Amino acid sequence: MYRLPHVKSRALYTASRVSPFRPLSYLSLKSLPRSFHLSSAIYQDASEQQPALKTGSITDPASCRTYQAHTGPFPARTHHCGGLSAKDAGSKVVLTGWLLPGRKVGKGFYFFPLKDSYGTIQLVLSGGVSPGTLDLMRDTPAESTVLVEGIVNERPANQKRPQQGGDIEVSVTSFILLNPAARDLPFAPSDTRNLPNEEHRLRYRYLDLRRPVLSSNLHKRSEVAHIIRSTLHENGFVEVETPILLKSTPEGAREFLVPTRLSSASPISSAPSVQPSSAPQPLFYALPQSPQQPKQLLIASGAVDRYYQIARCFRDEDGRKDRQPEFTQVDLEMAWVSWGSLHAASKQTDSWRIGGAEVRTIVQTLIRNIWHKIEGIELPEQFRVMTYGDAMGRFGSDKPDTRFGLELRDVTPHLPVQIREALSQRDEIVEALVVPASDETFRRAAAEMQPQESGITRIDVAENGLRIKDDNRLLDPPGPDALAHALALQQGDTVWLARRTRIPEGGSTILGRLRLAIASLAQSSGDLTLPPAPHFLWVTEFPLFTHADSDKEFLAHGRWSSSHHPFTAPMWEDIEKMYAGQIAEVRGQHYDLVLNGTEIGGGSVRVHDPIMQEHIFSKILQLDDTEKSTFNHLLNALRYGAPPHGGIALGFDRLMAILCRAESIRDVIAFPKTGAGTDLLFRSPAPSSDSVLEQYNIRTR
Amino acid sequence: MYRLPHVKSRALYTASRVSPFRPLSYLSLKSLPRSFHLSSAIYQDASEQQPALKTGSITDPASCRTYQAHTGPFPARTHHCGGLSAKDAGSKVVLTGWLLPGRKVGKGFYFFPLKDSYGTIQLVLSGGVSPGTLDLMRDTPAESTVLVEGIVNERPANQKRPQQGGDIEVSVTSFILLNPAARDLPFAPSDTRNLPNEEHRLRYRYLDLRRPVLSSNLHKRSEVAHIIRSTLHENGFVEVETPILLKSTPEGAREFLVPTRLSSASPISSAPSVQPSSAPQPLFYALPQSPQQPKQLLIASGAVDRYYQIARCFRDEDGRKDRQPEFTQVDLEMAWVSWGSLHAASKQTDSWRIGGAEVRTIVQTLIRNIWHKIEGIELPEQFRVMTYGDAMGRFGSDKPDTRFGLELRDVTPHLPVQIREALSQRDEIVEALVVPASDETFRRAAAEMQPQESGITRIDVAENGLRIKDDNRLLDPPGPDALAHALALQQGDTVWLARRTRIPEGGSTILGRLRLAIASLAQSSGDLTLPPAPHFLWVTEFPLFTHADSDKEFLAHGRWSSSHHPFTAPMWEDIEKMYAGQIAEVRGQHYDLVLNGTEIGGGSVRVHDPIMQEHIFSKILQLDDTEKSTFNHLLNALRYGAPPHGGIALGFDRLMAILCRAESIRDVIAFPKTGAGTDLLFRSPAPSSDSVLEQYNIRTR
Repeated sequence: MYRLPHVKSRALYTASRVSPFRPLSYLSLKSLPRSFHLSSAIYQDASEQQPALKTGSITDPASCRTYQAHTGPFPARTHHCGGLSAKDAGSKVVLTGWLLPGRKVGKGFYFFPLKDSYGTIQLVLSGGVSPGTLDLMRDTPAESTVLVEGIVNERPANQKRPQQGGDIEVSVTSFILLNPAARDLPFAPSDTRNLPNEEHRLRYRYLDLRRPVLSSNLHKRSEVAHIIRSTLHENGFVEVETPILLKSTPEGAREFLVPTRLSSASPISSAPSVQPSSAPQPLFYALPQSPQQPKQLLIASGAVDRYYQIARCFRDEDGRKDRQPEFTQVDLEMAWVSWGSLHAASKQTDSWRIGGAEVRTIVQTLIRNIWHKIEGIELPEQFRVMTYGDAMGRFGSDKPDTRFGLELRDVTPHLPVQIREALSQRDEIVEALVVPASDETFRRAAAEMQPQESGITRIDVAENGLRIKDDNRLLDPPGPDALAHALALQQGDTVWLARRTRIPEGGSTILGRLRLAIASLAQSSGDLTLPPAPHFLWVTEFPLFTHADSDKEFLAHGRWSSSHHPFTAPMWEDIEKMYAGQIAEVRGQHYDLVLNGTEIGGGSVRVHDPIMQEHIFSKILQLDDTEKSTFNHLLNALRYGAPPHGGIALGFDRLMAILCRAESIRDVIAFPKTGAGTDLLFRSPAPSSDSVLEQYNIRTR
Repeated sequence: MYRLPHVKSRALYTASRVSPFRPLSYLSLKSLPRSFHLSSAIYQDASEQQPALKTGSITDPASCRTYQAHTGPFPARTHHCGGLSAKDAGSKVVLTGWLLPGRKVGKGFYFFPLKDSYGTIQLVLSGGVSPGTLDLMRDTPAESTVLVEGIVNERPANQKRPQQGGDIEVSVTSFILLNPAARDLPFAPSDTRNLPNEEHRLRYRYLDLRRPVLSSNLHKRSEVAHIIRSTLHENGFVEVETPILLKSTPEGAREFLVPTRLSSASPISSAPSVQPSSAPQPLFYALPQSPQQPKQLLIASGAVDRYYQIARCFRDEDGRKDRQPEFTQVDLEMAWVSWGSLHAASKQTDSWRIGGAEVRTIVQTLIRNIWHKIEGIELPEQFRVMTYGDAMGRFGSDKPDTRFGLELRDVTPHLPVQIREALSQRDEIVEALVVPASDETFRRAAAEMQPQESGITRIDVAENGLRIKDDNRLLDPPGPDALAHALALQQGDTVWLARRTRIPEGGSTILGRLRLAIASLAQSSGDLTLPPAPHFLWVTEFPLFTHADSDKEFLAHGRWSSSHHPFTAPMWEDIEKMYAGQIAEVRGQHYDLVLNGTEIGGGSVRVHDPIMQEHIFSKILQLDDTEKSTFNHLLNALRYGAPPHGGIALGFDRLMAILCRAESIRDVIAFPKTGAGTDLLFRSPAPSSDSVLEQYNIRTR
């Protein structure tokens, strides 16, 4: 009964045999019992054949018109919407894309933007030329996917626009509605000024991703990943996939567990027994927080000399600002890392005095390639180096923002002797942040600054002497004249003072945070304009161990925990101290990579000596036997001839957020979770049924 | 007290101040309280300075010698062990690697292989030149990691070997023991003839990976991944990462769940509440079996036109032969897939008569690039195409091995009329596999074949007539004369007959399996040598739906389940039948890629029409509301203007196993699990504690 569409050599498909002005009401033409119509017509002006097949329809209540998706064959496009230019004028083209709302111009011309993921092009029709097609296109809901055939023309001079494709338009000769969009879209992704809040858009991520900025971010992310892989590949790195179903290890943040249908009733090395015994203990995999363990074992084996992976990592933390439960790291590890050719027993604290020279070199190469190709910026061959001590002392942060000054100073020598003695007994110092009256950039911010934290003493140099706000009684007894003299304070200057431990600890100090707050204030008021060039910085020589704090408390039993992780090697100059028990003075061969005050990666030279590693586990971290046993494979691997090795991991999401100028890493991830760890689109996490949980030998509490 | 090693410009480090013949007994020299010695000496003949620092020692009970790891600075290597050749003769080099057991030759020459992940080089020492170094190297346990400095020399002509590096040797002038290996290694990875069983080696995977074959496999895997990514990147594909923490969907095999600290007490869209309420229902993510859902949503959004990912997938199945709970797919999806320029309403069943032309093209390009670069083989531009019907009819398999003949035939027309009528009533046919006496390749195997399955009737053409073994009473009443005449049977021929449904179903038929068994037998006896060129084949036009079977039974409520997945589009010619309820006759736009009888990938053109998709869910698969609701996001995405799209996924582990000629995919995965899903190295899955489970609102049963 129905004639199947007949394919002609160049022509498209059958036309509807209806009045050109009412192309859509197929329901009036024929009805199948189920009211499902099989379709596939392209609508040409010349009616050729019966409309054969129609598909299910979407009826638009307003017009009572019915729109069908095209489910039959259609030709391949000849170009992208972003791939045409004036030199294509005169060509016949087939284009596909999303049809955006059209507009009428003058007496009978209609313009429609057609957009795909490569760009947008202007379609033009006039009522006189192809009325049926025009009516159809005018009625097609916005955001429908369509195919058009037409001819490329240069636009009249006064209509040309500077953007890509703005000098041409396509005169449409025929049109297929491939898939109609509903009229009740949750929001219009093309209407960038009226976007709903993020939560709503996350729920409809497949619509939000239609916005050019998100599409552009994903394209850039793919480009950067490709640059990374190509660079590493050219430098002899081997990509190796490490397990995601791994084992729980005591390494910091909580890990996600994965229940299995194996139970302790089953011998671990034979086929699982799923019969319930009296008390089968459920067994779990864990999702890795990083590929640290497998990559060290891989390098220890000698199977590869240089490893890399763009790896998915998982962390079950309480929702922190702008973090995801799963995130991506650029992970690499190298065997035989050495002191390179630059090694010198250097006294300079701004030089790289640790091992891992090869890691430093490859990371700098990588970053330079990325910034060259993506940003068009040439970075220096070697990045600046600073020790943790210097960073904390001068900037009050282990990831200092070096784009502006405002450095801190240790002013202890200039304080009255009683204060110095009291400080000495506590092994503390007093440091200062000075904002001179002549400092155009920071003077206003300094004047207005209201520190959030306590423990800061403020001195304003007034006409009639010093005005001191000293709630924490830092200068007790007072007597800052020597200080004022030593700092050469002048009227209008502001000085902030605070105490801290002499040996710096932690990630930032009070004055370091104040420094950032002042800079932030100066930026908002426009006094401070940060330089556009990115400031990269290596920070090295961190303390290897820190006093156990709340972050790692649930791990550390003794006084000490690892600043980064237990596999970091000490600086060789401090090895003796480490064995002698002078733990606080031991510096590690750890290096952080900082960009504009943000840490974008960190790594270290590892411990390759099994006896040293064992000593760190047992004597310093005081892990108990159970905890230590989780590292048996590592200790064995070290005992079986592991080379000296080191590596690094870069936070890829964060790197992309920086390169895309995105406010949140959610804008550089295709399907992100909310801050709470929920996925509004896929509606997870979700409940499971008892029957399912039963298979895993677990149940609801 | 200790002198720190002093770095000279070219020389290496301090020497031990001990007799050159007893370089290792540092314990006799000094003792620290803890018996930990800090080390770092390189041993030169000329004693320069006191051995300053030593590290923890490994004492070898046999010799009572003590070996220390080197924890101080050392220079960078100048070459790899595989990177030297005769043109480097005369150069001074610094090399690092694993020291393998040495041998003495003649009066005073000692040779040691030094191996790294790039190759092996021969080190040579003579006792006269550097006795201290020689003794040290002789005593160093095999598999220790070392650094040597030396001079490259050409070997004497009679000692040259053909392998890489076999024409040179390195004369050692100095040596650092970087990390001693224990003497009690679980096994010697270099002793390839005495390897322990796989279970033992999996337990010590970091040692097993030291074997060149596994190292080579990992290198090849990295190379192939790079070819894949580069090819796709050059063809406009965008790499996008999809979530691993996803949502449970009813799609076949069981999924792994991931407990979270969120519970149903917490509103899903705000911060999690971890306070236990009266009955907080635990909430779970699920690990995806494939990126199918996210990739379709991504393409529907238009954010990218062509997506790819080398994706980790997870499947909690009962341990099947050679499968892993986590595995890797090369995953891709394309918007606007069409019928290309090759489309013709073709009657030829060996042509591509479905959509997805662009997917076919890119996969062929990908596979050709891989086979060109890795195997040095040029594959045809277009791969052969076969319909499911043909594949089943001629080869009895939906993944036919086309490297040999032995095709099946439908012999129903040649059977007696009563049999034909009985078959017709059951909608069945009888097919035959004929092995002529003249077939040199298969005659012997056919004669010896003992089929494992029942339901096969065997006819041997003997001198005095047909000998029929017909336990299943296929030929009832007997009367195969017409058959013998039609098949032109001769003495010595063998014929196998079996019944099957007229419309083929499933993955293989009885005779298809018999065909493979005969070929296998013929291979073992040497009669059949398979051609070396790889036989690639597309199989298309599968039935879209199958009767619910045990594999998918826990999903399908009605009579039908999807052959592949519910998102596969029907061939447009069968759309009408689908809506009319003639489900068995509906063919899908699915395509499998087969290589030498193994399926290496499969994909399809998807349903882009939301009404059709809804119809499939509700009317054909009869999903209930809960099951359907898990696909709401997909239905919405289709309603909001989704383009026609299609894609494919290739099994990357399996592809690598084929390219590496590996017996098991475990040999192409760095850290694989056992068949039972256990990780012998990391000892997972493992128990968890009640206190940990409590946070997830679950407990042991």
